[in-house]
Amino acid sequence: EMNVAFLGTGSGYPTPCRGASALAIRYEGDVWLIDCGEGTQTQIMKLKTIRPGQISKIFITHLHGDHMFGLPGLLCTISMALKTVSNLKLVEIYGPLGLRRFLREALNLSRSVLTFKYVVHEIVPNRIQYDGWKPGDPDWNIEEGFGHAIFYDEVMKCWPLCSNKNMTVVAGGLKHRIPSFGFVFTECDKPGKLNNAKLIEYGVPKGPLFGRIKNGEEITLEDGRILKPEDFVGPVQSGKKVAVLQDTCDSWHMREICNNCTLLIHEATNENCQQDRCIANGHSTPAMVAQFANAIGAQKIVLTHVSQRYKHPLTHDVEPDDQTTEILETETRTDF
Amino acid sequence: EMNVAFLGTGSGYPTPCRGASALAIRYEGDVWLIDCGEGTQTQIMKLKTIRPGQISKIFITHLHGDHMFGLPGLLCTISMALKTVSNLKLVEIYGPLGLRRFLREALNLSRSVLTFKYVVHEIVPNRIQYDGWKPGDPDWNIEEGFGHAIFYDEVMKCWPLCSNKNMTVVAGGLKHRIPSFGFVFTECDKPGKLNNAKLIEYGVPKGPLFGRIKNGEEITLEDGRILKPEDFVGPVQSGKKVAVLQDTCDSWHMREICNNCTLLIHEATNENCQQDRCIANGHSTPAMVAQFANAIGAQKIVLTHVSQRYKHPLTHDVEPDDQTTEILETETRTDF
Ligand SMILES: [Zn+2]
Ligand SMILES: [Zn+2]
Ligand SMILES: [Zn+2]
Ligand SMILES: [Zn+2]
Repeated sequence: EMNVAFLGTGSGYPTPCRGASALAIRYEGDVWLIDCGEGTQTQIMKLKTIRPGQISKIFITHLHGDHMFGLPGLLCTISMALKTVSNLKLVEIYGPLGLRRFLREALNLSRSVLTFKYVVHEIVPNRIQYDGWKPGDPDWNIEEGFGHAIFYDEVMKCWPLCSNKNMTVVAGGLKHRIPSFGFVFTECDKPGKLNNAKLIEYGVPKGPLFGRIKNGEEITLEDGRILKPEDFVGPVQSGKKVAVLQDTCDSWHMREICNNCTLLIHEATNENCQQDRCIANGHSTPAMVAQFANAIGAQKIVLTHVSQRYKHPLTHDVEPDDQTTEILETETRTDF
Repeated sequence: EMNVAFLGTGSGYPTPCRGASALAIRYEGDVWLIDCGEGTQTQIMKLKTIRPGQISKIFITHLHGDHMFGLPGLLCTISMALKTVSNLKLVEIYGPLGLRRFLREALNLSRSVLTFKYVVHEIVPNRIQYDGWKPGDPDWNIEEGFGHAIFYDEVMKCWPLCSNKNMTVVAGGLKHRIPSFGFVFTECDKPGKLNNAKLIEYGVPKGPLFGRIKNGEEITLEDGRILKPEDFVGPVQSGKKVAVLQDTCDSWHMREICNNCTLLIHEATNENCQQDRCIANGHSTPAMVAQFANAIGAQKIVLTHVSQRYKHPLTHDVEPDDQTTEILETETRTDF
């Protein structure tokens, strides 16, 4: 007998309390999905009574983002849930003209290789639904300005992305299954603090002299005394440097630009004993992260991009057999 | 001073306990995002210390889905957060070659009109990162079969989508800002139950006669007695019919195919007093839903696609001034 599960009933965008549009119809073990807003796969997990692999049909009502931006991710998750390649599994998708192209674009660009077949049946709208409508032209979006291509700088050994008075951002190349970039955020050093009280004590008149000595100039007072900046300006406050290295199985091309970072945020997808498989998948283990962190003299490591298999003791009921994130933490501490 | 907020640290896909890749760097009121997996905007809302409108730069490490499928939705939400069109607001996005095209495709197809400007600066990968890599060809995806175009059936007054032995699915046209479809799921009627005990009592031998009488045939026994099916078969069990009508400001084109549905799932984005604005946005009010439900003889209504402004008393701390979903419920009950 048919029953309906509401996965998201919010309009416009998802919130923690109300997901974007999605609902599931269950019928004798089959699950059919209607709409698939962003976060639908997470809602399915919360519900627990539906497994992504059961979904055999998906119906998209229209192409607004709150009804279909979750579709590429859901297909990837169904794919992972199946584990082995299945020539029998077929997901049939029904939706307005244009949906097939969006899915092709999203799956091809993300190099998502699915373990099952899917097919998009496009519904051709009638005139009454939208006069003059035609499938979207992806050539240019009206709100989009002209971006530039950023090429590798052979001298700096990085891609210079942007900088302002406080911060510089560069990218480095990471080895992964597809081109992956690490980003390094370097806060500018700040000049040391000026000891105003001491200057006044030495009889320096408030005004431009204060600025000149702060900028590192020696100044000569009217009575001939010479004041050296090092006696009135504190030590330079060095800026923080944060390196964010996501998916990679080899970070060493970024060694120089990550040097001496305050914080290294690095992926560690699997534990050390799985290093071979992990590297084959383009990912890193705690030992690899620690070794890299030691080489660059990182002050602190935060692990990220952790395989969902490792449960976090604070957010999960951990069963005796469960693997937890503590494994990754311990392995990192061993070498760092 | 720079600080870092972790929005998602999971690999592969988001779960309720660990989001897909995303983190935010905050610096003097500016927020820069690194990666934007599916659900990042929801993680931002949970965090509460970052507002989407503060984000000025986004850095995408690579084009795997768990690092960028949340980007189109996030841009739409930033856009909604700004409320008025801003020529000053610019979001600069840095990511691998191919990202610009994905965003264009996603935003154009979903007809997302942003209230701000964005620009994609593409990072051109080096050979070492992936040999032979080139921007994705969206023409065809290897896992994709050949879908067909489904045209309007003038006789049936709907788009016939699919059917199997248990269920028939058709689409109808809805009026919205872009082509929108409602879906009607009709369970097949099931034949009435055969009264086996009564047949045995009448001396009918077990076997093919049972099947024939169940299928509505009159049967003649060896002794000449004629048995009529209506005396041995219970009433037909009529299937359920569920109509799912998402974004629309006019459902009346679907009146016939929704007739007598067991359950009408219909959008109701705003309350009755906002009907003009609501219709102008392509949406419905409770009164409109109730009127339609009465006309089609729906047995039950479930409202969906509710504006995020209406808080649900069970999942929110409701302040005295808050509007709740009870408004929509009450307005529906008034007319239905
Ligand atoms: Zn919507
Ligand atoms: Zn819509
Ligand atoms: Zn990846
Ligand atoms: Zn990843």
